[in-house]
Amino acid sequence: MSSPEIEALVQSLSRLPGLGPRSARRAVLHLLKRRESTLQPLMKALEAVDTRMTECGTCGNIDTSDPCQICTDPRRDDALLAVVEDVADLWAMDRARLFSGRYHVLGGRLSALDGIGPDDLTIAQLVARVRAGGVTEVVLAMNATMEGQTTLHYIAEQLQDAGVSISTLAHGVPVGGELDYLDEGTIAQALRARRIL
Amino acid sequence: MSSPEIEALVQSLSRLPGLGPRSARRAVLHLLKRRESTLQPLMKALEAVDTRMTECGTCGNIDTSDPCQICTDPRRDDALLAVVEDVADLWAMDRARLFSGRYHVLGGRLSALDGIGPDDLTIAQLVARVRAGGVTEVVLAMNATMEGQTTLHYIAEQLQDAGVSISTLAHGVPVGGELDYLDEGTIAQALRARRIL
Repeated sequence: MSSPEIEALVQSLSRLPGLGPRSARRAVLHLLKRRESTLQPLMKALEAVDTRMTECGTCGNIDTSDPCQICTDPRRDDALLAVVEDVADLWAMDRARLFSGRYHVLGGRLSALDGIGPDDLTIAQLVARVRAGGVTEVVLAMNATMEGQTTLHYIAEQLQDAGVSISTLAHGVPVGGELDYLDEGTIAQALRARRIL
Repeated sequence: MSSPEIEALVQSLSRLPGLGPRSARRAVLHLLKRRESTLQPLMKALEAVDTRMTECGTCGNIDTSDPCQICTDPRRDDALLAVVEDVADLWAMDRARLFSGRYHVLGGRLSALDGIGPDDLTIAQLVARVRAGGVTEVVLAMNATMEGQTTLHYIAEQLQDAGVSISTLAHGVPVGGELDYLDEGTIAQALRARRIL
């Protein structure tokens, strides 16, 4: 049997999404064989993240400063506010480099199954932020899942009388997507939203 | 964009086998959300492994002591020596709890493609260890791959006149295996090695 130190590391790693016990064990061996080039940099990277990263009190992004770089960037448009479920969604949207406004991270989605209600998300803070003025358009950029869309409609209702325009992301065929591999729902949405050339 | 600290951690994690950049990013978010229950224990586990684990000078196992627990265990049989490619194979064999002898880790397999020759493995040390006496059977427990079997035959040759019996693992249908999902090579081997009931 391998030692308790190894088993503890295997357990810690196998708690990560995407790594089962078997691949965690393989990862540990990989780390052990190349300590200076893999294990020690990983340790340092974890420590840097643990000590330096903090949640932005304004938008919920995770960054080295609070408020975060996005909230303090003077080139961004205060009038545009994108609402996303999670920090991962914020990063994904920002990687697309098209959106130039600010963000608001909900911290999840409404889910009856998981017992997540409006009070578990930062919906009240969002409404307060919008009502405080300065925002003219709120882009509801929830995931195109059942729960994401439920959350979207709930928030749209809450913002109904806030005097801002509310938009959502377009549904359709993803770039590079093949119709044959898409579900009927997506094809129907793409057809409904078809554009005349 | 996410900060350099996050990117460094994503990079470090995505170097692990089994984790691509996308799943590494998901893992980082998972770690960030639950720092006390995931990030900090992972950091501690990595540190414990880095500071405490060492390679056994006798067999090549990785353990907290050198010689390792297996090499110093008085209940194990000195006359039996299993040769494995890697530490992972040693652990896998030891999890089966059937082999009661000692081990020898080669540190890889012969591979013309990867430029790994006999001098890159601990074959000379193995031969010296066997010639030093006390061993009566060497179990060549290489993987059933082309390179594993090449290594096996090479080592068997080196030990030919060492005055020990040399054995290899049996090939056949894995426990729980269905014939329909097995390759012809395995079925042929299992048929050739069939046992009369």
